[in-house]
Amino acid sequence: MAVTLINAFEVPPGKEQEALEFWERVAEFMKRQPGYISTRLHRAIVPWARFHLINIAEWQSAEDFQAVIGSEEFKELTEPYSEIFPHYPGLYEVIRT
Amino acid sequence: MAVTLINAFEVPPGKEQEALEFWERVAEFMKRQPGYISTRLHRAIVPWARFHLINIAEWQSAEDFQAVIGSEEFKELTEPYSEIFPHYPGLYEVIRT
Repeated sequence: MAVTLINAFEVPPGKEQEALEFWERVAEFMKRQPGYISTRLHRAIVPWARFHLINIAEWQSAEDFQAVIGSEEFKELTEPYSEIFPHYPGLYEVIRT
Repeated sequence: MAVTLINAFEVPPGKEQEALEFWERVAEFMKRQPGYISTRLHRAIVPWARFHLINIAEWQSAEDFQAVIGSEEFKELTEPYSEIFPHYPGLYEVIRT
């Protein structure tokens, strides 16, 4: 069953470009992984949004996604940034439209 | 320019049904407002997601949306719940796919 990854990033003022470049490096890696379907990176257009960036991606299964985030390569790519850009990932299904 | 509203809700354990019913009441009101396009309510399928519900909606403009959330009716509908279900709304544009 396809699942939706939603990952909200808090970005300190002045670090927007660095956050985008970090996201692009990780996205480039994620797009090469089994089970990846698509992604849409959203940037806040209002100052009152707590999360400057929110990534919404589609994966073929929760297992596919969890295998990727459990990999050494993913950890090496992301761990240095987890404190600079606190983020709150989750896997979701749509329940109402 | 169409904009994307992303609103993440923290839901205390045991209050999932109450949160969903609250969201449905607000959605019913939002769908009748000028500028509303569509919505997709996402529910977490993993226990490690910080946000149990995330709403992703499309609006014809930021002005349309902000007019609605500035209305008395919206405030009456939502204010009683803002402490029970902390939420973090923002308006967004897609910058990478």
